[in-house]
Amino acid sequence: MTDFTHKEKEYFMAQALKEAQKSLAKEEIPIGCVIVKDKEIIGCGHNAREELNQAIMHAEIMAIEEANTKMGNWRLPDTALFVTIEPCVMCSGAIGLARIPQVIYGANNQKFGAAGSLYNILRDERLNHRVEVETGILKEDCASIMKDFFRKRRIKKE
Amino acid sequence: MTDFTHKEKEYFMAQALKEAQKSLAKEEIPIGCVIVKDKEIIGCGHNAREELNQAIMHAEIMAIEEANTKMGNWRLPDTALFVTIEPCVMCSGAIGLARIPQVIYGANNQKFGAAGSLYNILRDERLNHRVEVETGILKEDCASIMKDFFRKRRIKKE
Repeated sequence: MTDFTHKEKEYFMAQALKEAQKSLAKEEIPIGCVIVKDKEIIGCGHNAREELNQAIMHAEIMAIEEANTKMGNWRLPDTALFVTIEPCVMCSGAIGLARIPQVIYGANNQKFGAAGSLYNILRDERLNHRVEVETGILKEDCASIMKDFFRKRRIKKE
Repeated sequence: MTDFTHKEKEYFMAQALKEAQKSLAKEEIPIGCVIVKDKEIIGCGHNAREELNQAIMHAEIMAIEEANTKMGNWRLPDTALFVTIEPCVMCSGAIGLARIPQVIYGANNQKFGAAGSLYNILRDERLNHRVEVETGILKEDCASIMKDFFRKRRIKKE
């Protein structure tokens, strides 16, 4: 497990937030992700479901695909995944399948979160891979970009 | 929900088994999947994790991507997903995200299955999409291709 200082954690979460801004610019749900190895980013992703018309194209999936390609390996040992919002069921499953040992996320997702909220897939003793999970880094920023997005969408619909 | 005859279900599961054979030919865990709309196949997939070096490249994910591309839509209403083995956590999450209403799988996966074995994600009342699930179609064929694969792999390692 990589030992990050609090400043380093905030730095990488800020990079994930920059990724979330890419979703926002395309009117997508603004979630961003970076995967870090030896304190360097090896994969970036942002939610692009509407743009690419792909149900699976969440921030974490895009970042895992990029990191797998970069490393030439489907396993991602000694990496840490930073994501602005708690991963969903699909992404939590994907994190385990990619053998990512460490996840740091910004804000909880009470409706869809699978890293503690609805499920606790990343820490399930029955699965063959368990993940160290930390939360709360730049929590307000990660939550507020989501709240603003949904507020604006509601106003638009009214 | 599509109303399939038993013969039709066996036909589409046989197509999924043909997909699983593609994995087997590349010495990958042999799981195959087809997605059907109006009784026509709109997406095929086979497990290709090792070949493509992508942790997420399970049969269901490959089939969902193909169906999304073909339909030009991340939503797949009025479709049925046939897969030889019970979907894992990631794939069960992906099936929900793609709004697939119907899943038919061959054999259970006691170790990783998330459609009844370890989890029951496809029928979770808390999530915003629920799926009609049926199992047991060509169960012996779907299970035996897996057993043969793992038996041969064990012998190879000894």
